[in-house]
Amino acid sequence: MKVTKFGGSSVSNAEQIKKVLNIVNADPERKIVIVSAPGKRTSDDTKTTDLLIRLYEKVIEGLDYRPKQEEIIQRYADIVYALEMDDAMLTTFDHTLTQYIVNLKSKPSRLLDALLSCGEDFNAQLIAAYNNSQGIPTRYISPGEAGIVVSDLPQNAQILDQAYENLYQLRDYKEKLIIPGFFGISRQNFVVTFPRGGSDITGAIVARGVRANIYENFTDVSGIYRAHPGIVKQPQVIDEITYREMRELSYAGFGVFHDEALQPLHKDRIPVVIKNTNRPDDLGTFIRHDREINTNNVVSGISCDTGFTVINIKKYLMNRQVGFTRKVLGVLEDYDISFDHMPSGIDSISIIMRSKEIKNIEEQVLNDIRKHCDVDELGVEHDLAVLMVVGEGMHRIVGTASRITHALAEANINLKMMNQGASEISMMFGIDVNDAEKAVKATYEYCYNGKCLLT
Amino acid sequence: MKVTKFGGSSVSNAEQIKKVLNIVNADPERKIVIVSAPGKRTSDDTKTTDLLIRLYEKVIEGLDYRPKQEEIIQRYADIVYALEMDDAMLTTFDHTLTQYIVNLKSKPSRLLDALLSCGEDFNAQLIAAYNNSQGIPTRYISPGEAGIVVSDLPQNAQILDQAYENLYQLRDYKEKLIIPGFFGISRQNFVVTFPRGGSDITGAIVARGVRANIYENFTDVSGIYRAHPGIVKQPQVIDEITYREMRELSYAGFGVFHDEALQPLHKDRIPVVIKNTNRPDDLGTFIRHDREINTNNVVSGISCDTGFTVINIKKYLMNRQVGFTRKVLGVLEDYDISFDHMPSGIDSISIIMRSKEIKNIEEQVLNDIRKHCDVDELGVEHDLAVLMVVGEGMHRIVGTASRITHALAEANINLKMMNQGASEISMMFGIDVNDAEKAVKATYEYCYNGKCLLT
Repeated sequence: MKVTKFGGSSVSNAEQIKKVLNIVNADPERKIVIVSAPGKRTSDDTKTTDLLIRLYEKVIEGLDYRPKQEEIIQRYADIVYALEMDDAMLTTFDHTLTQYIVNLKSKPSRLLDALLSCGEDFNAQLIAAYNNSQGIPTRYISPGEAGIVVSDLPQNAQILDQAYENLYQLRDYKEKLIIPGFFGISRQNFVVTFPRGGSDITGAIVARGVRANIYENFTDVSGIYRAHPGIVKQPQVIDEITYREMRELSYAGFGVFHDEALQPLHKDRIPVVIKNTNRPDDLGTFIRHDREINTNNVVSGISCDTGFTVINIKKYLMNRQVGFTRKVLGVLEDYDISFDHMPSGIDSISIIMRSKEIKNIEEQVLNDIRKHCDVDELGVEHDLAVLMVVGEGMHRIVGTASRITHALAEANINLKMMNQGASEISMMFGIDVNDAEKAVKATYEYCYNGKCLLT
Repeated sequence: MKVTKFGGSSVSNAEQIKKVLNIVNADPERKIVIVSAPGKRTSDDTKTTDLLIRLYEKVIEGLDYRPKQEEIIQRYADIVYALEMDDAMLTTFDHTLTQYIVNLKSKPSRLLDALLSCGEDFNAQLIAAYNNSQGIPTRYISPGEAGIVVSDLPQNAQILDQAYENLYQLRDYKEKLIIPGFFGISRQNFVVTFPRGGSDITGAIVARGVRANIYENFTDVSGIYRAHPGIVKQPQVIDEITYREMRELSYAGFGVFHDEALQPLHKDRIPVVIKNTNRPDDLGTFIRHDREINTNNVVSGISCDTGFTVINIKKYLMNRQVGFTRKVLGVLEDYDISFDHMPSGIDSISIIMRSKEIKNIEEQVLNDIRKHCDVDELGVEHDLAVLMVVGEGMHRIVGTASRITHALAEANINLKMMNQGASEISMMFGIDVNDAEKAVKATYEYCYNGKCLLT
């Protein structure tokens, strides 16, 4: 059994929805389908989800929200009419929005979740009804009916273990099932949305719950590129990548598949394939627990993300002082700051974090470190970029570091920091933000365009 | 004013002591001299300090210790007779040893400190008396008289701030002063020895106390080599190095000057020069707070130390879990383990420590980490060697990492770990212990024998 998820651009209009259903109906294994809210139809279009946020804002600010509500219904009307469906459904959608607004006006964060969920929910209902009308037995299943129970914190749903047991029952249905992504239902019976990568997470949860053989994730690209196509011209598509590699790459800016969505799949080692709704025959990128390493595919991908801040601490005889680093990390913990890397010398450490983690509290954090940790020098550097070169087995092949650092030196890029752990599948280089694109290009040339053969 | 210290081999016999006094008397700035206990005269000789330890053991075990005591007195007698001095001094020395043994027999750790101090103390008295007899006004000053007050933990003296004020008074003496190294006097009036690098520490403390212009440290080599002469043939002598570089190199195995002795000098930025008693005209190696960096001296030295253990931890989504690393370090702190490096990925960390830190308690430590930290994978690797390439400004020069990693790749050495912090003056490479010598050789060739010009 396959669980198949379609992203917003794949279900943005009637034509796309027909493509989606052709894909779904072409394979009897595609039994469970997760759909997103209608995305952009053209580059200057607005996502349905963003329209819903504006509707919410109008309501909360006490403004006239009816035109916005009508605009949202019109998005679905465009699809319904283009698919020549009965438009009674639109009245139901409109009524649902009105009911949420009336009932939840006094609980803004609950209202936001409820309205947000409509983007996916209406689309799932519509797509299920249309496929049924085409003679394919198809059923809409709400997250409540599916048993997707989540924690009760608005906009921050965390799946509860019970959900996986509930979801297993979906295997019993004979029809194709269409489930809206992005939200679950809490034990308190509220709609709660997932924090990030919404529909991807629903798909992963359902795939694990029904013990799917594979989780298919359809987007508008034919897989995951080895580097950002905005930086490298026509980069290669990765054929196969591991969960761990995927996570390192998403961490450093690869946006195709959210790494949070990998978490449910990890345990049962369910593979993912990233495919293109518009070119369904393209092989796409497989994300698996393991992959075979050979000398041609040592480096899976290269990415560079910006927006990092580094705290630099110097302390004479730091390594002799048992507990020093722990004290520093204790301060970060007090402010709930998570950090990503911590390259160190014997008398110094650099703590690298996303700038947003420390924004607005930087002064307090530094003062607390000064107060509690008796440092010799304390400094902060902003505008750091982090280049990640990711590949399983990379650290076992002599010369990998040499070739990558050579590529960077040739491009005249200064390495402020380097970090590679023992069991690591990536090398991290801290560089100036202005060198970010140049670094990706240089490394890519070395790794994939024959300038370095890792043999 | 200069403070000048002579190591054990420089004061091991009459001939060496004459060399030392020639050096001292040749420069009126050399006002304060710190001396060690007589060291080995030939390669199969025994250091006086080791004789004193054996004397202590005999006493404690209730054995006949007189022959050992006589052997020690004989060491000084050899010097006294060769210098044609009055031998009354020897009776005093013998009496001092006897008094210590009688008075402190019931307090073994106090006895050990007292006996150990005699090695330096007798030598200082002897050298002062001899120089005086040669017509140079010279005075022996005991650590008590000098005001070297220390904490009261046997074999682990820590200097007290009061000492620096006391020592400043030494500037008032007109004579040359000879002070024994290696020990101080506690407020409880016990002799207490320094834990490591004994006489070097006394010299540094005195240099700071009297605000010397320079601290001269005479040994039996003409400075600090850029790499271990046992590994690289006739390595270059470093002309100038910073405190921080020196500390990184001592950390990784450079034994000439103990890094603990740098600590007192740090604050007042007193430079050190390492010179050769047997070749006093050689320039030696200057250790300073700052040095000028040019493209020819970017890398100060290369060292590789063995005997490291690394704990490897994997934990999915580690970087998201605020406090995870702190918890791991908390376990190490419980066992009083200090670690040296901690390269990390986003889902893993490697904690590198001296193997002796975790010896015998490895199982407990791992169990505690498992219990408290909910890790996915936990492993230990022994027999790790740490290659340190040290140089101020290294991280500012594009291509340094590239050249070093290239050298290592050419030598077919696999880099298990890499670590370079933002403000760091060293690069750390974790390698297999069997690659240690090969790594130093290869890096040295690249850095100093023209195979790589850092331009």
